[in-house]
Amino acid sequence: MTTLSPTLELACELIRRASVTPLDEGCQDLMMQRLAAAGFGVERMRIEDVENFWARRGGEGPVLCFAGHTDVVPTGPLNAWQHPPFEARIDAEGMLCGRGAADMKGSLAAMIVAVERFVADHPRHKGALAFLITSDEEGPALHGTQAVVERLAERRERLDWCIVGEPSSTSQVGDIVKNGRRGSLNGSLRIRGKQGHVAYPHLAQNPIHLAAPALAELAAEHWDAGNAFFPPTSFQISNISAGTGATNVIPGELSALFNFRFSTESSVEDLQRRVAAILDKHGLDWQIDWSLSGLPFLTEPGALLDAVSASIRAVTGRDTTPSTSGGTSDGRFIATLGTQVVELGPVNATIHQINERVLASDLDLLTEIYYQTMVRLLAE
Amino acid sequence: MTTLSPTLELACELIRRASVTPLDEGCQDLMMQRLAAAGFGVERMRIEDVENFWARRGGEGPVLCFAGHTDVVPTGPLNAWQHPPFEARIDAEGMLCGRGAADMKGSLAAMIVAVERFVADHPRHKGALAFLITSDEEGPALHGTQAVVERLAERRERLDWCIVGEPSSTSQVGDIVKNGRRGSLNGSLRIRGKQGHVAYPHLAQNPIHLAAPALAELAAEHWDAGNAFFPPTSFQISNISAGTGATNVIPGELSALFNFRFSTESSVEDLQRRVAAILDKHGLDWQIDWSLSGLPFLTEPGALLDAVSASIRAVTGRDTTPSTSGGTSDGRFIATLGTQVVELGPVNATIHQINERVLASDLDLLTEIYYQTMVRLLAE
Repeated sequence: MTTLSPTLELACELIRRASVTPLDEGCQDLMMQRLAAAGFGVERMRIEDVENFWARRGGEGPVLCFAGHTDVVPTGPLNAWQHPPFEARIDAEGMLCGRGAADMKGSLAAMIVAVERFVADHPRHKGALAFLITSDEEGPALHGTQAVVERLAERRERLDWCIVGEPSSTSQVGDIVKNGRRGSLNGSLRIRGKQGHVAYPHLAQNPIHLAAPALAELAAEHWDAGNAFFPPTSFQISNISAGTGATNVIPGELSALFNFRFSTESSVEDLQRRVAAILDKHGLDWQIDWSLSGLPFLTEPGALLDAVSASIRAVTGRDTTPSTSGGTSDGRFIATLGTQVVELGPVNATIHQINERVLASDLDLLTEIYYQTMVRLLAE
Repeated sequence: MTTLSPTLELACELIRRASVTPLDEGCQDLMMQRLAAAGFGVERMRIEDVENFWARRGGEGPVLCFAGHTDVVPTGPLNAWQHPPFEARIDAEGMLCGRGAADMKGSLAAMIVAVERFVADHPRHKGALAFLITSDEEGPALHGTQAVVERLAERRERLDWCIVGEPSSTSQVGDIVKNGRRGSLNGSLRIRGKQGHVAYPHLAQNPIHLAAPALAELAAEHWDAGNAFFPPTSFQISNISAGTGATNVIPGELSALFNFRFSTESSVEDLQRRVAAILDKHGLDWQIDWSLSGLPFLTEPGALLDAVSASIRAVTGRDTTPSTSGGTSDGRFIATLGTQVVELGPVNATIHQINERVLASDLDLLTEIYYQTMVRLLAE
């Protein structure tokens, strides 16, 4: 058996801990031990049923934080896996296989090993390094990063730059970094009609018929054009339901769930007002319960994005592309501290899937990219 | 206690038999005894779990058939009834109260008593009288009138005129007769999209968004203008459903149930072709399972409608209004024999409801109307 690199050794150790949300299964203990040995002050922050920790090393000056999560999504049917999901095997194609290999125990291992090397090589670095780690990113995410960030804000902890280890890459490591995320706004819509018998439609008001033109208009609406950093705001109806199952009854109500992924060109209030205007224009008797999942955030070109891009180019020879597409991440909570946030991790092709895997050598490249980013930002 | 009229006596006897679909509970035995005593040849036609009978009296010449059902709909919560539903009580306002009083044991009693009087007064009447009675009109209706009609068709039984005892009247007995019914056509529609994540709508095809403009167009479509006898064809979507409940998943498919109530101005094939054209125009990947509940039928002015109208005018002083509105009835099966069919029965205000009731004296008027109709059509 060949010797594994330090990053792969640690990635395997983490994958073998079956930390399905919100379990941590000792992943954080392992990380905290390694960081304490590297001179970090480590602070456990268990909040409700969620394990989190905050670690910091250094003094005055700019703070670069690594952020991530030790929890993983469920495996799905075990017999569908080529290798047991918590065995952490490197296959014949050089892929590290296992739940969490890409999302995001590979990144966690790369961060730890890169930081260990950096503080060994640069014991008197500028500013400070930090870690913000949760075990509930894949779950409700109420007692994870969001809650830790609230505590950090209360004590006015400085946090200039943050690298979240989310698997941002699409086909080769470093090809994409996320420099922001769209906002996410949910609406639960009810449209009231009047129940009746299909043979007597003039005595009823069919909410499906009333709603259809309004839903068509909402689906066709151009909400904004996006901007240099964000794609246009998108609107999607995820669920619709009306009727009792009986074929001769006109239902009394229609309900639908919809979601906006919105750019910094639209505000929550704008979107709410425009949806209301369309529903009112169609004369509907409607009600919406709104729920904001996250505001959009954006890290414009600057010190962090420059350092990350230069490091990717130096290590891989590739020019990275900043992007704000895709789902939400814990980056949205950290950005509320005024922090520049970038997500940089391995290729995301297999995340949340059966046979999750990542090219093993990519994790060593990622370690080097993290290392060089620290050099660019904090070397004395 | 005052003496009840023969019609009310018989109506009470029938109501006291709790013949909830498909039970008959001896109602038909009672009717068959009375008809046999009046000189009818009586033929029991039990088909599967449904009691039916066919009775006929007379020789060559035109045949006038009375049709109806002995089954009743369930009572609903018993304690909501002012009087027990199978007690058949006449209340202080002169209303005969009980399940089936209006739909349609009152009519059955009126038919029997009218026929008894008519054959007593006109023992050598022209043509023939007949009865077609089922105990499954309120249920699946597969082994009731439809099945009996098939047997009659096989043996080429002549059936010129038919009076169905359905409660056709709206505020006073005889104000409305039904001289036809709209057709009913059901469709089960599936529209296929492509499932995906709401954050990546360009990788998915949202079937709700795709369907909305097509459903709006179907709901707004003018299918036909109706004619002198039928209101315009109407289209109603009774059920719609898409989505898994998850707010971040674009569903892969939308399903909907719809129903046409259609006039003789539109054929089944017309409606199917026009729905397909609208769905195709919107570029949808769709599938419809069609199910025809009944073709429209129409009895144009002629001997039967003339005799019924003249009898209503003679007995009540009212001009009746022929109508084709409302739900379907067993008349649609009988009309397939080429028979002129009219529905004439008491006021339908309380049918299928708690405290079903009918003005007791209306049943005596109805008996007289049936009697005079026989005189006009079959007196020697």
